[in-house]
Amino acid sequence: MSGIMRLGFVEYQVPDLVLASNFYEQVFGLIKVAETPERLYYKCWDEYDHHSVVMKKAADLGLIKIGWKVEEESDLSRLEKKIQDYGIETRRVPGGEELEIGEAVSFVAPSGQTMWLYHKMTQVGKAVIPPEIVPHDLPGIGPTHLDHMVIAAEDLGEMVKFLTTVLGFRISEQVLDPEGRPIFSFLFLRSKPHDLALTTGPKGKFHHVAFYVDDSDAVIRAHAIIKGAQHRVDVPPSKHGITRGATTYFYDPFGNRLETFAGGYLTYPDFPTITWTVEHLSAGIFNTGGPPNLEKFMAWI
Amino acid sequence: MSGIMRLGFVEYQVPDLVLASNFYEQVFGLIKVAETPERLYYKCWDEYDHHSVVMKKAADLGLIKIGWKVEEESDLSRLEKKIQDYGIETRRVPGGEELEIGEAVSFVAPSGQTMWLYHKMTQVGKAVIPPEIVPHDLPGIGPTHLDHMVIAAEDLGEMVKFLTTVLGFRISEQVLDPEGRPIFSFLFLRSKPHDLALTTGPKGKFHHVAFYVDDSDAVIRAHAIIKGAQHRVDVPPSKHGITRGATTYFYDPFGNRLETFAGGYLTYPDFPTITWTVEHLSAGIFNTGGPPNLEKFMAWI
Amino acid sequence: MSGIMRLGFVEYQVPDLVLASNFYEQVFGLIKVAETPERLYYKCWDEYDHHSVVMKKAADLGLIKIGWKVEEESDLSRLEKKIQDYGIETRRVPGGEELEIGEAVSFVAPSGQTMWLYHKMTQVGKAVIPPEIVPHDLPGIGPTHLDHMVIAAEDLGEMVKFLTTVLGFRISEQVLDPEGRPIFSFLFLRSKPHDLALTTGPKGKFHHVAFYVDDSDAVIRAHAIIKGAQHRVDVPPSKHGITRGATTYFYDPFGNRLETFAGGYLTYPDFPTITWTVEHLSAGIFNTGGPPNLEKFMAWI
Amino acid sequence: MSGIMRLGFVEYQVPDLVLASNFYEQVFGLIKVAETPERLYYKCWDEYDHHSVVMKKAADLGLIKIGWKVEEESDLSRLEKKIQDYGIETRRVPGGEELEIGEAVSFVAPSGQTMWLYHKMTQVGKAVIPPEIVPHDLPGIGPTHLDHMVIAAEDLGEMVKFLTTVLGFRISEQVLDPEGRPIFSFLFLRSKPHDLALTTGPKGKFHHVAFYVDDSDAVIRAHAIIKGAQHRVDVPPSKHGITRGATTYFYDPFGNRLETFAGGYLTYPDFPTITWTVEHLSAGIFNTGGPPNLEKFMAWI
Repeated sequence: MSGIMRLGFVEYQVPDLVLASNFYEQVFGLIKVAETPERLYYKCWDEYDHHSVVMKKAADLGLIKIGWKVEEESDLSRLEKKIQDYGIETRRVPGGEELEIGEAVSFVAPSGQTMWLYHKMTQVGKAVIPPEIVPHDLPGIGPTHLDHMVIAAEDLGEMVKFLTTVLGFRISEQVLDPEGRPIFSFLFLRSKPHDLALTTGPKGKFHHVAFYVDDSDAVIRAHAIIKGAQHRVDVPPSKHGITRGATTYFYDPFGNRLETFAGGYLTYPDFPTITWTVEHLSAGIFNTGGPPNLEKFMAWI
Repeated sequence: MSGIMRLGFVEYQVPDLVLASNFYEQVFGLIKVAETPERLYYKCWDEYDHHSVVMKKAADLGLIKIGWKVEEESDLSRLEKKIQDYGIETRRVPGGEELEIGEAVSFVAPSGQTMWLYHKMTQVGKAVIPPEIVPHDLPGIGPTHLDHMVIAAEDLGEMVKFLTTVLGFRISEQVLDPEGRPIFSFLFLRSKPHDLALTTGPKGKFHHVAFYVDDSDAVIRAHAIIKGAQHRVDVPPSKHGITRGATTYFYDPFGNRLETFAGGYLTYPDFPTITWTVEHLSAGIFNTGGPPNLEKFMAWI
Repeated sequence: MSGIMRLGFVEYQVPDLVLASNFYEQVFGLIKVAETPERLYYKCWDEYDHHSVVMKKAADLGLIKIGWKVEEESDLSRLEKKIQDYGIETRRVPGGEELEIGEAVSFVAPSGQTMWLYHKMTQVGKAVIPPEIVPHDLPGIGPTHLDHMVIAAEDLGEMVKFLTTVLGFRISEQVLDPEGRPIFSFLFLRSKPHDLALTTGPKGKFHHVAFYVDDSDAVIRAHAIIKGAQHRVDVPPSKHGITRGATTYFYDPFGNRLETFAGGYLTYPDFPTITWTVEHLSAGIFNTGGPPNLEKFMAWI
Repeated sequence: MSGIMRLGFVEYQVPDLVLASNFYEQVFGLIKVAETPERLYYKCWDEYDHHSVVMKKAADLGLIKIGWKVEEESDLSRLEKKIQDYGIETRRVPGGEELEIGEAVSFVAPSGQTMWLYHKMTQVGKAVIPPEIVPHDLPGIGPTHLDHMVIAAEDLGEMVKFLTTVLGFRISEQVLDPEGRPIFSFLFLRSKPHDLALTTGPKGKFHHVAFYVDDSDAVIRAHAIIKGAQHRVDVPPSKHGITRGATTYFYDPFGNRLETFAGGYLTYPDFPTITWTVEHLSAGIFNTGGPPNLEKFMAWI
């Protein structure tokens, strides 16, 4: 079992913090927990750590870093050594360099994205005790938690090797080309159908950030809210064959692709990898429906 | 087929218009279309007539009137005569006496509630063209339309006779006591499982006003919003056996009982009345669950 | 208000009664009520008339007739005269010529489909008293009732005129081309968002037969059952902008297109027609998703 | 993190294997994987191990054992020693003593239930590759997997101590009495809101076995199937405040209490325990609804 518990936070660029604030608070339904002149910090209503999304003001789009929360303080040095042994340079980030985050290990993955491992983030708890089963006054979609990311790798096999042998990810599902090489890999840490998925693409890029909502009806509602608020939909409500999750994709005002995801099975270390061949690819990626504009859907950020 | 199309509006008393405004707009999710120092006027987002709910400021609770919208102008005089022939006094209300409503016929039903028949109400249409499939910026529950009411009748058989022979209602379902007398009667006009239901109770009283929401998930969400906003729940999400609708009951801040209702079958003039005996009563009223406090649930307003 | 209450039954051709029987009973979830060497008769579980679907053995596909149930015996001769006055020949069908159906009026609509008006069909009631809120032992999808049909008309304006002025249909929604001519017309009788819809196409053809299921989750489940049973899906789960209904389209083993439909608003005689222009057409037909293969979806039967 | 991955199987007594077979296959929707004259073996459709439920023929009801699947072979001896150090006797069960299960460690928990730790069970995989998102031909409810159990403990504090310090469980939620002693404890292993819950009760007894279904609609459907098939419902569809899961409880033909459960949050080792006081107990146990017959619901098996 990996020392990493979960995708803890993601930081990416947005060109306008006021527009971002309007969208992420009023339409997407996140809770703002902090802001600086340069950054906005958000959490989902059912998360107990300080934040899970950071947006940094910048002229263009782009991923800044992906934060993985480890279970034990000792996992930091253990994983740091494994990463170094793999031939990747690491940097120790002192606690407090980033808001509400303790000491961290920073490195650039073989696929080019910057990643952080960290053990401490200030816990702020959920909104109220006793907790509500649905928050009654959250506007917009209101996802429960940050769920997973999909990123690009120029060399998919190499990145899968790094993630599985160094960081402890496992493969839940994969799609193989006729030569038996993976073209999509879905990797999990502890119990999700995927915490990170990969497909072939340019260095350092990401495809989307996915947030969890309660069920397929919440996915349908999310789509209606996005469409009603005149934001761009990428893929209307559908179900993945891979992961069995309900899904819809859309864009923030700047073109960052977001997914709301619901359902899917539980995984364990003994989960037998499900392997798809390309003939079943379309049923795997979108069992019901799919992107009306495939070219747009394949664009990297 | 009755000349009456539907339950067009209901008017009832509330002790505080500011409190009412907060609840009905922020928590219940109605749209305010007009207000005077004495009254608030609301519509649901998917209704096209000017209003469907009127609240009048008064020291205590109580039903003021129930408005039935007729299909043709000529239905007014035709039904007026039938009501008079039945022995009930009627009053012609000139157009404009009530906000945005044309000429009307007012009378007191045998069960003691004041009812209006009217043909004209200003049409305001839906919110936007093209319409949204879910309104993206409506706070709270956001029902689609006023659905039905349940009222008391001291003499149930007498009131059923008036509604069916004079106003053209039909019986969709009924519960009979061992002597074959109705103890609950569910009456429909055109296609709903019920537009009005009756049970034995004090003169002029009502039990609840019901609003439609999209499906059983919307009923569950309605309950969570009410509970989260610290308002009083009467019956948590459940399904009626009678009508097959999903349901939850709760109170506005003053004690007016509201229902959100979803689903149920379609009726037609040839719908064969479903008759329940008292032994199946509990499965009929609440097939799944029911009121935790039966005494509270039986209180009239 | 039209004398016609509803789409009572539809009869169409299938090449193999055994294959049809397997599909419609085990996968689609209808109840067989009668069979002859030439025909299969089915009802949905929540319908109370004898049958709503008739399949006749034939070498190829094709619509045989559409049955409209009228409210009163007298509606038969009244509508018969209106049809004749419009210049269309009618035939009086004696009661009993068709299984469990009383006297009928048969005619060919301007768009070429044979239609029957009838007042009597043997009522068989629902499965059990007291009724179940979901039938516990019905295999497959199990729709509640026959809902609507979409048919072709060579001259759309002419067919709309016939349906509205002679048969009493009303227009709920329509899509107009830039010259203001209808290219899609959605017509209702009493309370559905549509009982019959039209688009331009070849004489006598139909597009699909639609059955009602409880809600959007039931539509998603229907799609999964069809796909799991290896039958052909035409349009995966989606929502119409027009009617606001949830929908999925698929094929029986022979290529007859079926829709499962859920939700949508109630209509009344005063429903203000919603008019779409072609620029919003895609949001109107499929607000969420749509046909992956548009050419296939446009094929007539 | 505990070496235990999950609740792997449960074995309990039933008085009649034919009756059991009818109920668990036709109504509950499990898949029979093996049978002997004395026992029935079942799995859920989305599980990949050989079985998760064993029923043994016996004159009366009763729990036989609870099986916990550990991640590594070495977890067996490690946990065996910790259990012995705690003062509890263990027995090494040779592989093959039980159908399709490898070597195991058997012991009696402080609360009196027999438990097994095991690492190997024959993997049979899911039904089909590629997997269906909903099995299209499974009759009845069709849960996806065995989810959790609730058992009795005479000394709740003692059993919580054993589970947390020896077996590695963590506490997700608890209800404390005014003196600060737990009266309900909800314990998790890896990611569920609970894998095992405890409340004060007689030695060796259990309250129910819970199976997972997809969402709240599936819970409503499960209840309708049970009720329609004339089996006894214990608690109609409701939502727990604790765990936030949707739930309904009912009985097999012999009185074994089963729960279908859906939703609920994800847990991690850093999940901050949620503590309820008795004043919020009813909202915690059943946020929406609850048992109509509390005495019946409190009965142990």
